[in-house]
Amino acid sequence: MSPIKLPRLTKAIAPLTHEVVVVNEHGEATPISIPAERALTVYVDKRELVTLMTLGAHPELLVLGFLRNQRLIASVQDIESITVDWGVGAAAVKTRAGIDNIEEKTAKRVVTTGCGQGSVFGDMMEEVDSLVLPAAKLTQAQLYGIVNAIRLKESTYKSAGSVHGCALFKGEELLIFVEDVGRHNAIDTIAGWMWMQTEPVTPVTPVAGMTGEDKVFYTTGRLTSEMVIKSAQMGVPIVVSRSGITQMGHEVAQRIGLCTIGRATNKHFLCYSGQDRLVFETELAGVKLR
Amino acid sequence: MSPIKLPRLTKAIAPLTHEVVVVNEHGEATPISIPAERALTVYVDKRELVTLMTLGAHPELLVLGFLRNQRLIASVQDIESITVDWGVGAAAVKTRAGIDNIEEKTAKRVVTTGCGQGSVFGDMMEEVDSLVLPAAKLTQAQLYGIVNAIRLKESTYKSAGSVHGCALFKGEELLIFVEDVGRHNAIDTIAGWMWMQTEPVTPVTPVAGMTGEDKVFYTTGRLTSEMVIKSAQMGVPIVVSRSGITQMGHEVAQRIGLCTIGRATNKHFLCYSGQDRLVFETELAGVKLR
Repeated sequence: MSPIKLPRLTKAIAPLTHEVVVVNEHGEATPISIPAERALTVYVDKRELVTLMTLGAHPELLVLGFLRNQRLIASVQDIESITVDWGVGAAAVKTRAGIDNIEEKTAKRVVTTGCGQGSVFGDMMEEVDSLVLPAAKLTQAQLYGIVNAIRLKESTYKSAGSVHGCALFKGEELLIFVEDVGRHNAIDTIAGWMWMQTEPVTPVTPVAGMTGEDKVFYTTGRLTSEMVIKSAQMGVPIVVSRSGITQMGHEVAQRIGLCTIGRATNKHFLCYSGQDRLVFETELAGVKLR
Repeated sequence: MSPIKLPRLTKAIAPLTHEVVVVNEHGEATPISIPAERALTVYVDKRELVTLMTLGAHPELLVLGFLRNQRLIASVQDIESITVDWGVGAAAVKTRAGIDNIEEKTAKRVVTTGCGQGSVFGDMMEEVDSLVLPAAKLTQAQLYGIVNAIRLKESTYKSAGSVHGCALFKGEELLIFVEDVGRHNAIDTIAGWMWMQTEPVTPVTPVAGMTGEDKVFYTTGRLTSEMVIKSAQMGVPIVVSRSGITQMGHEVAQRIGLCTIGRATNKHFLCYSGQDRLVFETELAGVKLR
């Protein structure tokens, strides 16, 4: 076994909020915070690939997860380093051996739904039918734990609004919480973070990348086709949202047996698909309002 | 003067909502409506350009506005026809004389913020500084009229949730209201609709396309850089949102003197930029809560 070679990442820091003076309906000037939004142009081996608009909290993990979710690289070990410089708004990705057929892989364009990933390289739908999701369950108590953990989280959303939040849970344990102006960026950042973790298979043979099989993905945004597909690609079989679902998101989730839960606030939720993965404990739901 | 030649558009119809059975927190199965989400692949003169994910309410106007807002065509008269067939999920665009340098125009990619246009061809920011917005004002009473008109609107959002709404107003008169799973689609559809209108300059010389100078653009979504830029490109100098603003949206709006108003619900709002365009009538705001 050769040792795992994780990429070197900078930790570029930039303010996440910005103060502006606004005028309200009474004609009063008031200072408020608004979220940052920055352009980050990604260069792979000195070749310009794409410009991402981001809050800027975890730019290196965002770029890593973007390359992963766009299926441009197959392993985290293919990347030698990601260097972000906010002074010029650039992320320089250095690969160990280049990316095969990058022109071909970036040729097909899909402008996806709303807050979904703005654009995907290649056709994610083609992959869907080959995905096999692991058996995994979530209890209603754990679901309430997840909703409560999100509620308690200090966030840019609370101070400045106008951002989406995504999180990864193991049961009801919060592993990582990411906010961005686009929820596609937030999920990509989580994908990048998962790749940077190592899990021991045996004490001497660690494996690069955290698996999704016993994880739950949370998003404040809607469950569009793209969010469902990305979650499945990351191997995460259960997705929870504060918001609703679209028809294509629902169809894809049903096809691959992914459990989708939406409108999750306080004790309320709707389970749209994969109901067999949710262990109902309806006595926890409280009194029914009729 | 040669007569205006508007493109021929099909009127492809598909259901906007879909009924599914969900299970709630009490373990009860209930039917609910969710919004449709469809893939529409755009072919320009038989060449595949892009796939848009859309609710599907006005696919022909969406495609027309997409081509307009991406700056792929300069005039509505450059298009001979747009034919949408939901059976195959395709929109066939026939131009009168082709699109010059289409490869070059579609080479640069920006994945924009969240619900913003997923991807833009070319660099919209480059154009921003050349934009000159017309003098236009909105009174606080008109603003309240806009918020109220939106509130009263029957919509897919009310029946199924999970869609964004955009609208175009002249003063407080609602001209068009569009919903889509992505707000970038909704604004593109409005841009397409504006191009299909004709305004008489003199009774004998009509002009293709409605101008934006005396219009107000409304969106349920956030005012990201892209939404601000698109509004400015359409010549609309005042934008109202139910949601907030990002730092780049704010900076761009200030630079070009665009009036941005957010958090507009009931009597409350915040004016982020271009305050000189808003005629305050603070006596309409009611009693201040302290």
